Amino acid sequence: MVAQMTPADLNNIRDKAAIVGVGETEFSWDSGRSELQLAAEAIKAACDDAGISPHEIDGIVRYEMDSNNETMLVQSLGIRNLRHWEAIAFGGGAGNATVAHAAGAISSGYCNYVVCFRAANLRSGVRLGQARGSERITGGQRGFLAPWGALAPAHSFGMFARRYMYEHGATSRHFGWVAVTLRHHASRNSRALRRQPITIDDHQSSRIVADPLRLLDFCQENDGAAAIVMTTPDRARHLRHGGTPVLVEAAAQGSGPMNEGIVFRPDLAVAESAHTSRDLWARARLQARDMDAFMFYDHFTPFCLIGLEAYGFVPPGEAKDFVEGGDNIRFDGPLPTNTHGGNHSEAYIHGLTHCQEAVRLIRGTSTSQPPEKEINRVLSCSSTAQLSAAVIIRRG
Amino acid sequence: MVAQMTPADLNNIRDKAAIVGVGETEFSWDSGRSELQLAAEAIKAACDDAGISPHEIDGIVRYEMDSNNETMLVQSLGIRNLRHWEAIAFGGGAGNATVAHAAGAISSGYCNYVVCFRAANLRSGVRLGQARGSERITGGQRGFLAPWGALAPAHSFGMFARRYMYEHGATSRHFGWVAVTLRHHASRNSRALRRQPITIDDHQSSRIVADPLRLLDFCQENDGAAAIVMTTPDRARHLRHGGTPVLVEAAAQGSGPMNEGIVFRPDLAVAESAHTSRDLWARARLQARDMDAFMFYDHFTPFCLIGLEAYGFVPPGEAKDFVEGGDNIRFDGPLPTNTHGGNHSEAYIHGLTHCQEAVRLIRGTSTSQPPEKEINRVLSCSSTAQLSAAVIIRRG
Repeated sequence: MVAQMTPADLNNIRDKAAIVGVGETEFSWDSGRSELQLAAEAIKAACDDAGISPHEIDGIVRYEMDSNNETMLVQSLGIRNLRHWEAIAFGGGAGNATVAHAAGAISSGYCNYVVCFRAANLRSGVRLGQARGSERITGGQRGFLAPWGALAPAHSFGMFARRYMYEHGATSRHFGWVAVTLRHHASRNSRALRRQPITIDDHQSSRIVADPLRLLDFCQENDGAAAIVMTTPDRARHLRHGGTPVLVEAAAQGSGPMNEGIVFRPDLAVAESAHTSRDLWARARLQARDMDAFMFYDHFTPFCLIGLEAYGFVPPGEAKDFVEGGDNIRFDGPLPTNTHGGNHSEAYIHGLTHCQEAVRLIRGTSTSQPPEKEINRVLSCSSTAQLSAAVIIRRG
Repeated sequence: MVAQMTPADLNNIRDKAAIVGVGETEFSWDSGRSELQLAAEAIKAACDDAGISPHEIDGIVRYEMDSNNETMLVQSLGIRNLRHWEAIAFGGGAGNATVAHAAGAISSGYCNYVVCFRAANLRSGVRLGQARGSERITGGQRGFLAPWGALAPAHSFGMFARRYMYEHGATSRHFGWVAVTLRHHASRNSRALRRQPITIDDHQSSRIVADPLRLLDFCQENDGAAAIVMTTPDRARHLRHGGTPVLVEAAAQGSGPMNEGIVFRPDLAVAESAHTSRDLWARARLQARDMDAFMFYDHFTPFCLIGLEAYGFVPPGEAKDFVEGGDNIRFDGPLPTNTHGGNHSEAYIHGLTHCQEAVRLIRGTSTSQPPEKEINRVLSCSSTAQLSAAVIIRRG
């Protein structure tokens, strides 16, 4: 055997792809139009932000869950030749993965302009957060959960949270500080659905939906779409935001051997995204302390704590102290976290808005721009409970 | 503006990924087991061929149509950490695209061992070839076709064939020579479902199913699975077939602006895969004449002629003369074509077996190995009517 580079050492996409456009529809409880319409609007907005025509798009990386397929988009957008298309499975884990894969497609030379998007009527249409019956039971491990009443995501993820509380002494109040902080960020963001500030007491008095998760631990359920346009760094220089290049520095996807839900996992309090974290930092040759901001997939607030630990921002068990009072994770604190308000309070576009916010922070255009530091590097990640993905986005 | 390299010039995946294992289940009319079981068996066979354990797989590129998702496979195969997963939409166009994308994932540094697979009970389960009603009508352009009776693939693709015949003077007999030749190849292949040789008269007397397509113009409908394992060229050297490296030299996907079915297309007789073809040759810096064999997606025999022209093996309109009598496309002729018998006679695994056969030809292990020439480069492609993909596989 010879010594061989492992994927943890290789990073052939480093700085090979630039994010040049971000765009979205309005976020609402009832968009009143089709998911195709939402997709086309968000993609057009991202193209406008980049300064390109949608006709120039020649790659699409989408969520497998999205109802829009490539032929519908080719026709709606007037794409002349689609050179790369793919879909990534599983909900929030796909968000950062779309950006990672788009970087791969660009660095491979497969296309010029890739769009990543998510468009869904998740409130007026099919609500992912609701309990479901038979149609979910057939799929793999669901059959082990559903008969016991774990029908909605909150039922399963609540158990993670409970185990984490047991292991580390975290309380519902710690989760509450995440909620209060994200809502504070949303209160400053005109795109956000929930702009009314909340207090820790509001959180503590909100009803328990799936123990230990309270209503204010939950993300939104809403309609809307978001899109990101990427290209080569060379092209990026000549586009609208060419003066502030935003590059993908490193990316990783990962899972443990028991990656879905809560069945068969050795320890519910330990993030399986440790695999993703390890690869990411090795590829980037960076550490958590090199990050200027932290975007995490906030379907439920406890995963802020679990994510902070999985990616090494704090040692295991110490996240509860780190989030206490919210100062550390507020936009003007040491680790600005989900400065858009996240899934929790801005809108639930399945994690894609986190990469958009990373771009805005680097451009200096976030509605909660940290006042006293330049944002050069942002980690956007999904954590713990399912197949996960993470990406480091940096100033070029 | 500066001069910029286009995707047609860039080929950053060139020789960065090796195909190290191919495997499949038996092909049958009724497998008697689940599609997950079929997938696991084919992937295990491909791993055995490579000389690796399934535990080492850390990437999966699958057809979006496949019913098996990543978490099911992680658990069934004992994958320790899945570092890359994606799905590619649309049937036969995904076959070569899985290999192309896997090459991208490996060259990006995202994973070590990627498996591409297709597993389906397409005969005992859902038959893709059958006419369907309402469930298809809702999707995009289907709504323009279904009310007129174009419910099954053959209804649409038959119209391509008819237009091609009109434009170029091709006849059903020309399609018949393709059928006769592919069946001859299958007659030499113990894996094949249809091994009874046929004559041009058999073809001409087979019943018309969807004018002008006769029964013997159709691919099979069957159960089964196929898998391909890929890794870095460095790793490949130390694996079971290390003495005969098989590399991905170039790849392309593409579509025209009107890429699905027959609606809105300016010319049914012209392959939209011209886009794919143009990118492929530019990236490879090769031409059709540099290929030692031709694998084409043979859902229906006329697409042999259309593919030969789309990829430049013969000028437009001359494919009918090229295939006449079958000598030119037989395994011992100048352009060995679908030497496994293809979808037409070996089995319909949605185009993935064509890449497997390319590997066997380069290894010298095809059941219809050309007797008097070494196979150094093979084109495997899908053609014309939908989003298409192509890959050049070469001896390392």
